[in-house]
Amino acid sequence: MTAADPVIALDAMGGDHAPREIVKGAVIAARDLGIKVALVGRTEVVEAELARHKDRPHGVTVVAATDIIEMEEHPAQAARQKKGASIVVGLKLVKEGRADAFVSAGNTGAVMAAAIMYLGRVRGIERPSLAGLIPLSGRLSLFLDVGANADARPSYLVQWAQMGAAYMNKVWKVPRPTVALLNIGEEESKGNALALEAYGLLSRSGLNFIGNIEGKDVPFGKADVIVTDGFTGNVVVKTMEGMADYIMGQVRGAIRSRPWYMLAGLALLPAFGALRKKVDYREYGAGPLLGVNGLVFIGHGRSDAKAIASALRVARDAAQAGMLDAIRETAPARAGGRPSGTTAAG
Amino acid sequence: MTAADPVIALDAMGGDHAPREIVKGAVIAARDLGIKVALVGRTEVVEAELARHKDRPHGVTVVAATDIIEMEEHPAQAARQKKGASIVVGLKLVKEGRADAFVSAGNTGAVMAAAIMYLGRVRGIERPSLAGLIPLSGRLSLFLDVGANADARPSYLVQWAQMGAAYMNKVWKVPRPTVALLNIGEEESKGNALALEAYGLLSRSGLNFIGNIEGKDVPFGKADVIVTDGFTGNVVVKTMEGMADYIMGQVRGAIRSRPWYMLAGLALLPAFGALRKKVDYREYGAGPLLGVNGLVFIGHGRSDAKAIASALRVARDAAQAGMLDAIRETAPARAGGRPSGTTAAG
Repeated sequence: MTAADPVIALDAMGGDHAPREIVKGAVIAARDLGIKVALVGRTEVVEAELARHKDRPHGVTVVAATDIIEMEEHPAQAARQKKGASIVVGLKLVKEGRADAFVSAGNTGAVMAAAIMYLGRVRGIERPSLAGLIPLSGRLSLFLDVGANADARPSYLVQWAQMGAAYMNKVWKVPRPTVALLNIGEEESKGNALALEAYGLLSRSGLNFIGNIEGKDVPFGKADVIVTDGFTGNVVVKTMEGMADYIMGQVRGAIRSRPWYMLAGLALLPAFGALRKKVDYREYGAGPLLGVNGLVFIGHGRSDAKAIASALRVARDAAQAGMLDAIRETAPARAGGRPSGTTAAG
Repeated sequence: MTAADPVIALDAMGGDHAPREIVKGAVIAARDLGIKVALVGRTEVVEAELARHKDRPHGVTVVAATDIIEMEEHPAQAARQKKGASIVVGLKLVKEGRADAFVSAGNTGAVMAAAIMYLGRVRGIERPSLAGLIPLSGRLSLFLDVGANADARPSYLVQWAQMGAAYMNKVWKVPRPTVALLNIGEEESKGNALALEAYGLLSRSGLNFIGNIEGKDVPFGKADVIVTDGFTGNVVVKTMEGMADYIMGQVRGAIRSRPWYMLAGLALLPAFGALRKKVDYREYGAGPLLGVNGLVFIGHGRSDAKAIASALRVARDAAQAGMLDAIRETAPARAGGRPSGTTAAG
């Protein structure tokens, strides 16, 4: 199913800068990109934010949700109990076909739990996976799992690789995406028990599997899709974030340490600005939750208006490209996958 | 046992820049720091390198080893079969009390396998662990395991934390070192099965356990000792290396992109030099292999003379501080550890 003029449901209440930056992002996306956005949240709050913008774009509507799941709440419990939460209401819009995708910068665990609960899993997918886009090199790498599944089985990694390849092909137009396994050495004989078994499965998967890559290769985009378990994946993306913060902080500190350096640093500001843009997660919106029966994108909790607008654009592109059908089509390639379920697996 | 004037056995044949940089490092350490070094390797090769230095320092001796384990050889197999290899000969010097520590920048797996084979494990330690020093923040963090054990059990992590704390206390003089568990969230309820169980054990260990830290905290030295399994640890240190290379490369590229930037960049050279020194692994020598019956330090394959000299200094400090006794004393704190063995566990 492809949607020519899709509607994207947006969690107006989720994220560190909700609702202001979220609503602003919706306004930008609707005005500048012509995207239809259904803002889901407390009506009076959302309307008050919308009133801050002079020209309310035509494509923005508001859908009432009376409750909010806070960032620190227990994900599965909150998703189950708060039926009126913006996350739950937004996902139900997708379930009922009233929206084509859902975007949230809120409680990641709650969005994942609610998506599995209300949308169900794609047939043959044992565990849905949250993916992140690594934008550093000239080309994008899709990196997964980034935290949905702290413990993984080898078969999960193969399913994630298949969905990731379908996503990169459909949404980012990469022909026959390359797939790599994150490991502690390039040789086939390297790795923990999980990686060793996953290597064998990936080799026989029919995917464009190029073998193992190491941590040092991750920033350089050596594959279109990089798979690992959700514990390692989460630690890696956060380590990259930490190192970027650390080094840029050190560069700033060095420049500030002497007046003459400061002058030179000022001259370099545009160059540093360009670099900063390159390592800026906001340019690439949100990561797809792959393997649920609906298009769901989860943004960074720190998302500002620009990040939200990017996320809405990616969600729109995914809906127009028929990403969900492409994900579902990976299923016949798998032997003996479990049937789709609508309950979250513990 | 503390050694007032220790002798450090050094693998002259191991590392990407062996033997030239290794021998040069030994000469520097002996001449500038008064360290006694036994260079282990092919006599004629080592002597030829020594002849390049005008004033051969008094403290440098040569011990013959007829064979070499190459970087790409199968670690355990090579360690078992090549009895005359510099790695094996050097470790035997430690075993026989003719040297107080062994330093190598050679095949990491082979040094670990040979160390377990020839020195045996410390009583109560299930698996020795290779540690790395993260030098980025004002203070040092000891990070382990960085690749000796791709699969780990919760009890290993506790033993590694105990040894790591003993090391930071004895060699780096940190009073009551803080210990943290690398995890995917700060809350006790976060993590994979390994981390969840390790958290409980660490809480009850009597160590100065400060809880979980995330990947983004690693560069900032938020704990004196950070423990994780060898798969995650290896991926993390290599990701940090990759990110540092990536960002510094981008900064260089940005500066070179316009003549005016280049001029400003030239002015900033000293500031960047200071930063580079800070992220330079060579300042901190080599990582200790903790849990074997002898002092063993493994350096980066890329080690140059400066890195080797630093490694020799750290090994000398460790021998003088009685590090091995401190490691052995962590054993009574553990209940039901296996007895020491002399065979490598698979």
